[in-house]
Amino acid sequence: MPEFRQNLATREWVIIARERAKRPEQYKVVTARPAPPPFSEKCPFCPGHEEQTPEPHLVVPNGGPWKIRVVPNRFAALAPELSPDRHRMGRYLFAEGYGIAEVVIETPRHDLSIATMRDETVASILDAYAERYRAIAHRPAINLITIFRNHGPLAGTSLEHPHSQIIATPIVPPHVQDPINNAHAYFNNEGRCVFCDILTEETDVKVRTIEETEHFLCFVPFAARSPFETRIYPKRHWGAFSGTTPEERRDLGGVLRRALGRIHRALNNPDYNFIIRSAPIMGEDVRYYHWYILIVPKVTTPAGFELGTGIYINTSVPEDCAALLRDTEPAAIAEA
Amino acid sequence: MPEFRQNLATREWVIIARERAKRPEQYKVVTARPAPPPFSEKCPFCPGHEEQTPEPHLVVPNGGPWKIRVVPNRFAALAPELSPDRHRMGRYLFAEGYGIAEVVIETPRHDLSIATMRDETVASILDAYAERYRAIAHRPAINLITIFRNHGPLAGTSLEHPHSQIIATPIVPPHVQDPINNAHAYFNNEGRCVFCDILTEETDVKVRTIEETEHFLCFVPFAARSPFETRIYPKRHWGAFSGTTPEERRDLGGVLRRALGRIHRALNNPDYNFIIRSAPIMGEDVRYYHWYILIVPKVTTPAGFELGTGIYINTSVPEDCAALLRDTEPAAIAEA
Repeated sequence: MPEFRQNLATREWVIIARERAKRPEQYKVVTARPAPPPFSEKCPFCPGHEEQTPEPHLVVPNGGPWKIRVVPNRFAALAPELSPDRHRMGRYLFAEGYGIAEVVIETPRHDLSIATMRDETVASILDAYAERYRAIAHRPAINLITIFRNHGPLAGTSLEHPHSQIIATPIVPPHVQDPINNAHAYFNNEGRCVFCDILTEETDVKVRTIEETEHFLCFVPFAARSPFETRIYPKRHWGAFSGTTPEERRDLGGVLRRALGRIHRALNNPDYNFIIRSAPIMGEDVRYYHWYILIVPKVTTPAGFELGTGIYINTSVPEDCAALLRDTEPAAIAEA
Repeated sequence: MPEFRQNLATREWVIIARERAKRPEQYKVVTARPAPPPFSEKCPFCPGHEEQTPEPHLVVPNGGPWKIRVVPNRFAALAPELSPDRHRMGRYLFAEGYGIAEVVIETPRHDLSIATMRDETVASILDAYAERYRAIAHRPAINLITIFRNHGPLAGTSLEHPHSQIIATPIVPPHVQDPINNAHAYFNNEGRCVFCDILTEETDVKVRTIEETEHFLCFVPFAARSPFETRIYPKRHWGAFSGTTPEERRDLGGVLRRALGRIHRALNNPDYNFIIRSAPIMGEDVRYYHWYILIVPKVTTPAGFELGTGIYINTSVPEDCAALLRDTEPAAIAEA
């Protein structure tokens, strides 16, 4: 029997199409991407090519030339020298494309991915995110900072070298604000953070848990929109990623690496996006919103119904996807 | 200079990345899909294979066996024999997958598409949509009817035979309801329907118009989320597609065919989705909401930023896309 399931936080619904559901292992990528070389002469992010990127905002040193570099995005869709003021163009609103776009070059090695890095390396990347988040948050016209990673062409990137991105905008759009308003309404009704309640529910029933650590719960959400959607929620209530402690980021380095490592092995290195969602700036200590990581493997294609209604038809069962990931050994670490 | 633009109706923002924008003709599909045969022995929708689909709800007769068939979707994600009641599963809400899913087989010819049909054929398809819409709307537990078309694998279909779909749900999700609430707030402030105001603005400035007819305006929206996004708005204010007159549907048949015909020729037959958006059932005569058609050619891939914020980075300029489509002769009609 197909079923509707509601995302408790956003109030959006999905359809779990049990009749049409494939077995989870059928979502495996059939033609694996060729393994990249450890160094590429043509890659602007590989060591020795530092002059091909703008002046870095942050360089994390290493025994070698560098461990992590954070640079302005050379092909940025937004620019910090513009104005955040809104104007009217006829009946419409527009603004100059003010904002910040940075690229986090995660490692000198062209062939790694978070799934195959050492946990300490992933934790250092998270430290770099947090440092840049805090620096960018000081700009008065910036209201939202989104950290994300695109892995592979179906996830919207053609650049192979391991990297993630930080985009900061003056605008908090409805897509972000509406779920926050829902969370606020939930808090006013129930007296508790909706994300904390989801954590309690998932810890009670355990059927969608992939892994639990001291500080984090990694699970497939009840109302997953697509096969193998994965979430990582911090157990400690806080609105923004920037409020994590170094100790929490050490823990998260392992949780994130293993989550992506399980997806890597179970699905044969699929393309994916991950996003770190935080409350808007200056609302990081709100009691009703909770930062989290969303991982979306790109193994299905949304169609007209999804586009038209926002109701995703998920042709997998979240509990089955969680069971498969829980039972999968993460991919081997390729970093020395 | 990049710019933020706001969708007046939904309040969502896009980034028009002028610096990164390609010329519109660069979105042309490079490797064209092979032309399908007029009849396929393996196709369940081709004439002579009627026993492969469930009993039809509607058959539009022709000189031949039939002109259009509307059948229940054999692989439906929803089923009419289930219950629309919501239940709790722990802290979450769920419901049986009650709903209606029908397939509109648009023509006996396997090789046509709306872009290559005669205008009268497209008008007959629109008549079939309207007839089924009105029949389904009588069911008391149905609250939303979405009509859509998936063209090609990037749009989520593997079935080549020309078809569209109708899905009716008991649920009106936030993705649909939130823009309606925005339109309501706009109406309360301004005293006018926001869609009527968009029509006035577009008719005033004309820079994004593709075609204007007696009853419709076809244009690229100011805040298009992706290259060649196209909208068709009825000039007469009404909340739902089912309220169209036969005369309006004759006109719309030509407008829709030419819009898709221009996209077909300009972009070399790209995959696309179109969606007919209507107000929920029993709200079809509201003064603040207006039905419309949204066409989305699948020529770019949304990435983590789009997924995380709902702010789409459009690497084309809406005015340039409109100019190219306006100047493109629609694809040749392949129907005798």
